[in-house]
Amino acid sequence: MSSNTFGTLFKLSTFGESHGKAIGGTIEGCPAGLKIDLDFIQSELDRRKPGQSNLSTTRKESDKVQLLSGVFKGISTGYPIGFILLNEDQQSNDYTPLKDLYRPSHADYSTEKKFGVRDFRGGGRSSARETACRVVAGAIAKLLLKKYKIEVRAFVKQVGTVVLKKNHNELKLSHTELNAVRCPDEAVALKMIKAIETARKQGDSLGGCIQCVAENVPAGLGEPVFDKLHAVLAHAMLSINAVKAFEIGAGFEAISKKGSEMNDEFLPSTSKNLKTKTNHSGGIQGGISNGMPIWFNVGFKPVSSISRTQKTVNKSGRSVALEITGRHDPCVLPRAVPIVESMTALVLADFLLLARSNQV
Amino acid sequence: MSSNTFGTLFKLSTFGESHGKAIGGTIEGCPAGLKIDLDFIQSELDRRKPGQSNLSTTRKESDKVQLLSGVFKGISTGYPIGFILLNEDQQSNDYTPLKDLYRPSHADYSTEKKFGVRDFRGGGRSSARETACRVVAGAIAKLLLKKYKIEVRAFVKQVGTVVLKKNHNELKLSHTELNAVRCPDEAVALKMIKAIETARKQGDSLGGCIQCVAENVPAGLGEPVFDKLHAVLAHAMLSINAVKAFEIGAGFEAISKKGSEMNDEFLPSTSKNLKTKTNHSGGIQGGISNGMPIWFNVGFKPVSSISRTQKTVNKSGRSVALEITGRHDPCVLPRAVPIVESMTALVLADFLLLARSNQV
Amino acid sequence: MSSNTFGTLFKLSTFGESHGKAIGGTIEGCPAGLKIDLDFIQSELDRRKPGQSNLSTTRKESDKVQLLSGVFKGISTGYPIGFILLNEDQQSNDYTPLKDLYRPSHADYSTEKKFGVRDFRGGGRSSARETACRVVAGAIAKLLLKKYKIEVRAFVKQVGTVVLKKNHNELKLSHTELNAVRCPDEAVALKMIKAIETARKQGDSLGGCIQCVAENVPAGLGEPVFDKLHAVLAHAMLSINAVKAFEIGAGFEAISKKGSEMNDEFLPSTSKNLKTKTNHSGGIQGGISNGMPIWFNVGFKPVSSISRTQKTVNKSGRSVALEITGRHDPCVLPRAVPIVESMTALVLADFLLLARSNQV
Amino acid sequence: MSSNTFGTLFKLSTFGESHGKAIGGTIEGCPAGLKIDLDFIQSELDRRKPGQSNLSTTRKESDKVQLLSGVFKGISTGYPIGFILLNEDQQSNDYTPLKDLYRPSHADYSTEKKFGVRDFRGGGRSSARETACRVVAGAIAKLLLKKYKIEVRAFVKQVGTVVLKKNHNELKLSHTELNAVRCPDEAVALKMIKAIETARKQGDSLGGCIQCVAENVPAGLGEPVFDKLHAVLAHAMLSINAVKAFEIGAGFEAISKKGSEMNDEFLPSTSKNLKTKTNHSGGIQGGISNGMPIWFNVGFKPVSSISRTQKTVNKSGRSVALEITGRHDPCVLPRAVPIVESMTALVLADFLLLARSNQV
Repeated sequence: MSSNTFGTLFKLSTFGESHGKAIGGTIEGCPAGLKIDLDFIQSELDRRKPGQSNLSTTRKESDKVQLLSGVFKGISTGYPIGFILLNEDQQSNDYTPLKDLYRPSHADYSTEKKFGVRDFRGGGRSSARETACRVVAGAIAKLLLKKYKIEVRAFVKQVGTVVLKKNHNELKLSHTELNAVRCPDEAVALKMIKAIETARKQGDSLGGCIQCVAENVPAGLGEPVFDKLHAVLAHAMLSINAVKAFEIGAGFEAISKKGSEMNDEFLPSTSKNLKTKTNHSGGIQGGISNGMPIWFNVGFKPVSSISRTQKTVNKSGRSVALEITGRHDPCVLPRAVPIVESMTALVLADFLLLARSNQV
Repeated sequence: MSSNTFGTLFKLSTFGESHGKAIGGTIEGCPAGLKIDLDFIQSELDRRKPGQSNLSTTRKESDKVQLLSGVFKGISTGYPIGFILLNEDQQSNDYTPLKDLYRPSHADYSTEKKFGVRDFRGGGRSSARETACRVVAGAIAKLLLKKYKIEVRAFVKQVGTVVLKKNHNELKLSHTELNAVRCPDEAVALKMIKAIETARKQGDSLGGCIQCVAENVPAGLGEPVFDKLHAVLAHAMLSINAVKAFEIGAGFEAISKKGSEMNDEFLPSTSKNLKTKTNHSGGIQGGISNGMPIWFNVGFKPVSSISRTQKTVNKSGRSVALEITGRHDPCVLPRAVPIVESMTALVLADFLLLARSNQV
Repeated sequence: MSSNTFGTLFKLSTFGESHGKAIGGTIEGCPAGLKIDLDFIQSELDRRKPGQSNLSTTRKESDKVQLLSGVFKGISTGYPIGFILLNEDQQSNDYTPLKDLYRPSHADYSTEKKFGVRDFRGGGRSSARETACRVVAGAIAKLLLKKYKIEVRAFVKQVGTVVLKKNHNELKLSHTELNAVRCPDEAVALKMIKAIETARKQGDSLGGCIQCVAENVPAGLGEPVFDKLHAVLAHAMLSINAVKAFEIGAGFEAISKKGSEMNDEFLPSTSKNLKTKTNHSGGIQGGISNGMPIWFNVGFKPVSSISRTQKTVNKSGRSVALEITGRHDPCVLPRAVPIVESMTALVLADFLLLARSNQV
Repeated sequence: MSSNTFGTLFKLSTFGESHGKAIGGTIEGCPAGLKIDLDFIQSELDRRKPGQSNLSTTRKESDKVQLLSGVFKGISTGYPIGFILLNEDQQSNDYTPLKDLYRPSHADYSTEKKFGVRDFRGGGRSSARETACRVVAGAIAKLLLKKYKIEVRAFVKQVGTVVLKKNHNELKLSHTELNAVRCPDEAVALKMIKAIETARKQGDSLGGCIQCVAENVPAGLGEPVFDKLHAVLAHAMLSINAVKAFEIGAGFEAISKKGSEMNDEFLPSTSKNLKTKTNHSGGIQGGISNGMPIWFNVGFKPVSSISRTQKTVNKSGRSVALEITGRHDPCVLPRAVPIVESMTALVLADFLLLARSNQV
């Protein structure tokens, strides 16, 4: 276990705080011979970057990634791929008033208890800025997955109380990118946008839910015991800032149903690859992919940074009024879509490589 | 990543299938000098073992653990603690009819795709029998946690459609063990028991929800990025058989609320250890414990083994009728309570040791 | 890092002390579908076991291994292979006089400083008895390597001052098992045997050197930086009791030579697999196997257990006379040959699986 | 295992090739609250950098390190410390003639077999340039060790056939930095310098031996089985470019001696910390430090890059004459001294943190 590294064979390590010189990381274990499409990586980063629409923070980060190693003539060499993104728009002084107090539901207090010291600028390493590194690595993982025709797509399913009451298989996921909120149903998307705008005006924030689906994942990925595929996906998802909940397939809905309702019946077939009539299991049985689409929901709390005045305490334990003046997203869901996809891609890429050693 | 090992410093490896000679494992990293109370370990195993009440399977396993190493004169030596539990009541022949077909929503098909071969007796390693090893290690982790006054307690919050609409802080958790279903509210417990008995008669199964709470966890456990404390807890929980969902604190309920409603206000204090007015965060902020009780919900699907006739396919892909004649629990929730506690204890023990290196 | 686990994909964990109930371990990551030849495993254990010749200790351990999991109908299932060997001939009382003093150059003192407590019976976990577990795992690794025609063979090259002045390529390695000292040159073997017998009479011990060679290792195993193939081999070898030195290929002899003398010239070839004229590199260049035989030397100190009276101190720091009455090998080299082979096989099996992910 | 990461708690990952944009890395697990002395880090890099004396390559790299994260107001925050060193003096065209052939005893051929592709510029990642990253991390590890008064010092003991026939305890190690060859005995140093100059004129290269000593290491570091302290030190040392041999304490010299000669007698004492009369064990017994100085020898082969014409083959397997025109060190030993120290410091820092969990 290591806070800053994720994966076993296909592995990402990251470093960097919100207001340091740069964030960056290293991707180890990317197999040699993969075409590294830099434009694709950048386009993924652009889906995450702040300021891309009215819905997000006005903070500006160009988020240009520089690959420093591991790629030669456009091809991965098998060496680690080091990369950095410079931090540009650092208004660190915005944060000086925060240095002696603890923002509610932020990492300020718990970080200080852990380390004794704290880099208070912009939340330090607990800032979601770090997730840009995950998108870089996730993009490269996607390039590897594409070789196997595996496709990972996420979309916003809920914002506050606005819920899209359909699952991935009832939707045109190609429509996800058509609106700023990344909801593939246009009518629901409009309501979500309105809700976010209202929250912004109120100086408040909204949570929500992202659904992610991975198609064409071969059967046989995942491990039978501790590293069940959905256990590692849960780990990956809950490592994303503001995520508080995860369910694979029918998830919490399934718990009030009966076994006879939830079991996924196998369909007769002449193919070696079976299909099931339903997919309540979310494409994973006994921790191992079964070839059906993998789908899961990820629940985000409303982010803690709100511009309304709040009560909190300072380092001396005295009550103080807090006004957060930084630039924050009233709802992070739209920008979190590529992050969810990236973490999913990292998990799948890793298991794909691990699976190469399943059999003699 | 390794299917059979969990943890970094306080670490459990397990081996064994449902119908092999024995299951067992190794606990590495238990600090030297800990009194190992074998009676306590056995009492924890007894909470998990089959046949302990009318609600569970009639399969008989005495589940006697033998510690083989790492303990000398009743004290841990710092060496790995190896242990085994013999498999006694192996009616392997029960399973021969299953060898050429795939039970719905079991690991049969996905395991065979993964490994090419399959130990079909009793689900092989995908059987929940393996979790007995987790309880052994979890009990030892609890002994370590007790030194720090950390207490981990779980209870059944939902069975099928019967829901206990209270959280841990509104309940007397000492009442949990007073009934066979391990629900601390006697009236709700009775309804749960009735629901399970009905399901058994119907040849069906029920899912449900377990809530777990860890008290007196010091602030500062967990890592800021990939190994957020709740991310590792989610990993641990979803590695348990039949678990499909996880939420820390307010979880999925929080996602339709606003930031101003969900932020946990710090209370003025003269102590170095702050408290928050509410605990929607579930005791973890930014991935790091904040000293408040850690609480989370774990969702179990209804188990796949039901005695009703089901349709499935055999290895040739042809449709067959399936009748499962093994002895199974209609609802695993009551027996899963010590498993949830054990995995929680393992996570906390590991982070407790890791935290020793947080500061110079 | 974990004292009790070795490897990344093909991985061995062991537990057990010299005088506990049993020693044992778990082999994770053995690919499914491998025929597990139990007789071969036992025959490897017999090469290591005490009492096999006049040269070794008279302690009796039948060293019968029991596989507890992971094998079904004689074939590996991909599940972890758990195993134990019962400790039979425990004359623990022999060790009671040792509990309050520190034997020179044993682990007694350093272990007690580390853990605060100490299992003093037979050296606890620092006893070479633990290496029996390595031989079990090594035998299974050899079975995997055989699929690739990789062969690992070691032999005794030096005992005390008796040196076999030939390298593997000048010897008939099939002669190694023809004598009790495991030296493939009969004349030298006789001198070694004589030297060991003399040492025993003197109540003293002898060290020596084992050379190991791995043939038919494909080019491309090993990692370019920290996990160079020879670095991991060195780690493996120095983890064996009494080993104090390691050199790959020409090793320490090379350091006084010139680059022009030591460089291994590639030979013209129409094959894709090149050969070199010399093999001073020991089959590894830049940390990666080049297809030539891998060879290295492993230096063992004379073991610390000698029956001569020695001076040492007790727990109070007072001078005491020490007489070790246990039954010990005057020279461990002959019995260490299968241990060296086993650790080599474990390293190669692991890298063989890791190499499956080198390329897209 | 991971080629590019070293350590468990105090952990270094590196990336970068000789002729990419930059090399760099991440140091994870540095405890919070450590004063990070940037001048000291730079001074350590200067001991390694090329062109520091007439003895080394004329290649120029200013080797200025930039810390990108993990340090705030001069103090470590507990976050990962990311860093880069730009590659400046890249005469990549020097290497174009090498792209279709394999230099003898370099990693060219084995790398290409491993990855299918190869970054041929300057040896790619197999270049010793990567070791600059180890020195950055090693310097930070030294800062941590200083808190415990642990001191790590290495010196050149042999160059070609010129041998300094004294061990660390017979030398003034403070004299090591007084000459360009880093040998603490001035007379021997002069002979070494002469030998290197002769080798350069002959277009040849020399190997040698570095001895390293770590003083004030507390007893109790290291693990009893696979991760014996000297096993991990061996791993660390053999991961350094051109290192082919390792011996702890008396090492290969010990193997022809008797147990009665090599056992280190404990001295009577009223202190809790015992000392031994001799230190043939090199400060480690049973894999665990015993409080005596840790000392070991590291053998370097003569580097493969020589300017003399050599015979080799090209990608078609045809014989070609090779003339290496790059700028290379005729003997890397002097510049390797800080690298040996750095890897030693990394190992000790890691075990120091691991030891915090040895006891309850």
